[in-house]
Amino acid sequence: MALMRTIIAVDIGGTQLRAAAYKQDQIHPLTQKRVETKANEPDTFGRLVKLIEDIWPKNEQVAAIGVSSPGPLDPHTGIIMNPPNIKEWRDFPITSKLTEHFGIPSCLDNDANLAGLAEWKFGAGRGHHNVLYLTVSTGVGGGVIIDDHLLQGHHGLAAELGHTTLQADGPLCGCGQHGHLESFSSGTGIERFVAEQLKAGRDSILESGKKNSAYAISEAAKQGDALSIEAYQVAGKYLGIGVANFLHAFDPSIVIFGGGVSQSGPILFDSFEASLKERIIHPRYLEGLIITRAELGDDAGLLGARALAELKFNSL
Amino acid sequence: MALMRTIIAVDIGGTQLRAAAYKQDQIHPLTQKRVETKANEPDTFGRLVKLIEDIWPKNEQVAAIGVSSPGPLDPHTGIIMNPPNIKEWRDFPITSKLTEHFGIPSCLDNDANLAGLAEWKFGAGRGHHNVLYLTVSTGVGGGVIIDDHLLQGHHGLAAELGHTTLQADGPLCGCGQHGHLESFSSGTGIERFVAEQLKAGRDSILESGKKNSAYAISEAAKQGDALSIEAYQVAGKYLGIGVANFLHAFDPSIVIFGGGVSQSGPILFDSFEASLKERIIHPRYLEGLIITRAELGDDAGLLGARALAELKFNSL
Repeated sequence: MALMRTIIAVDIGGTQLRAAAYKQDQIHPLTQKRVETKANEPDTFGRLVKLIEDIWPKNEQVAAIGVSSPGPLDPHTGIIMNPPNIKEWRDFPITSKLTEHFGIPSCLDNDANLAGLAEWKFGAGRGHHNVLYLTVSTGVGGGVIIDDHLLQGHHGLAAELGHTTLQADGPLCGCGQHGHLESFSSGTGIERFVAEQLKAGRDSILESGKKNSAYAISEAAKQGDALSIEAYQVAGKYLGIGVANFLHAFDPSIVIFGGGVSQSGPILFDSFEASLKERIIHPRYLEGLIITRAELGDDAGLLGARALAELKFNSL
Repeated sequence: MALMRTIIAVDIGGTQLRAAAYKQDQIHPLTQKRVETKANEPDTFGRLVKLIEDIWPKNEQVAAIGVSSPGPLDPHTGIIMNPPNIKEWRDFPITSKLTEHFGIPSCLDNDANLAGLAEWKFGAGRGHHNVLYLTVSTGVGGGVIIDDHLLQGHHGLAAELGHTTLQADGPLCGCGQHGHLESFSSGTGIERFVAEQLKAGRDSILESGKKNSAYAISEAAKQGDALSIEAYQVAGKYLGIGVANFLHAFDPSIVIFGGGVSQSGPILFDSFEASLKERIIHPRYLEGLIITRAELGDDAGLLGARALAELKFNSL
């Protein structure tokens, strides 16, 4: 039997760095800490090292460090390519740097993949072998487990499911392409739909000319605002079309939704479910399929980084 | 080292049954045979047993039987659900029947998955760990290898890539849905496009009111017929959009095309490549990516069935 050793998990977010130390047989961290980041602040790596030193557990042997970061990044080489808000980390070899500094192995993957891995290992997907995780918030991201194995791909760029074309001549996506799932069903997509309709003179309790957040739109929908209801129905419809595509591709036993927009409830999921049922090519895909919400919340990045390190270095 | 034993491979096609015996260290079969099938002919299983007995190698120990069949089917339970042209095999437990009759383990998967597995093990995908195989003929089918592992899915229905929605309000697909890759880029889709345009009075060297095959359309395109050229350009454009989706999902190192339509050459692939480059969200997906033709032709089903049996029962 392998010795139970401790893993350090790091979660690099848009506005903060987090680190925690986990014993392999315990779900709760031994120690944890977070620090805020500011755009263009220098020496982010120095502050990350300090953060890790602060949570380094006394009297424990640390086996490895796992890191979650926004993409694009390369999990095979451990290089972060172009993270939001940390400009000095363009093509930054974070795993080599951490291993050089701390003398232990380290590994990296993106936040959506690792949230999916965390939900499979510790959250809503426990016991499932084939998991589709989708985070629906400002953007749409994916994480896929196939036969208990994290889908990463040859270049480490797999499961970019928000950028699936569903309507080739559809609306503009944040990435510059058209008709992606993200352009319809993300918070940004919902906001764009409402802004366009308001500009075209559509009646609504929402004000034209100001920024209406996806959350404000969901509140207006709950008050019966027809435009806001339609915005979420459109988002749900395309989310259903996208998930039908993913069931046809991956055929999971569970679909787990994370991210703020996925907490909108029936205003999103009623049209999602109708659309998914309409678009699936064979009823067997839906037999026993569980569609549920993520369980791990803000800790998904840390727990996913921890799970990746445990999987990757479990024979150490 | 495991004893090299012999595998029997079976390929159930729309018009014929094939069987072959393979030694594990040889690419060419020891013995092989095929028989024609006719729709609604009785006792298909009896004829399959006879075929297997005919090719059963003397003086060899047979380890297992692998079976390739058109879907839908369940590879986990070994049940063929509804094969074309063999009506008596609705929900037919072929692997149990074969195991019961011959006293050795057997396994099953669909023709597209197994053609992909065969190309990875013996064909164009040798040495690659992440393979996307697409067959483009009457329909569009997929087979996906992820980290040297065949993607099958929870219900065994994964990699139905022809039924990926690319244009939610697009043309009718053979499955009854709209805007699938298959509805645009299969031979059937190409034929439908031409028939519709001819019916609308479009000028062409092809005759309206008669059935123009995808092959006849490709010949007309090569003679400069503008409608036929456009039909293949549309097919290529949507094939590029579909493959961009699949690269974003699976991130393979090689894309392998099988099937008759994929032999159309530049009339299909020029627009395919332009479309793929336009639609990919990050150039890294294309770094080192090989896009090539299948190598195994008609033997892909047999070799895939053999590969599945070798993988599944390799510890016997």
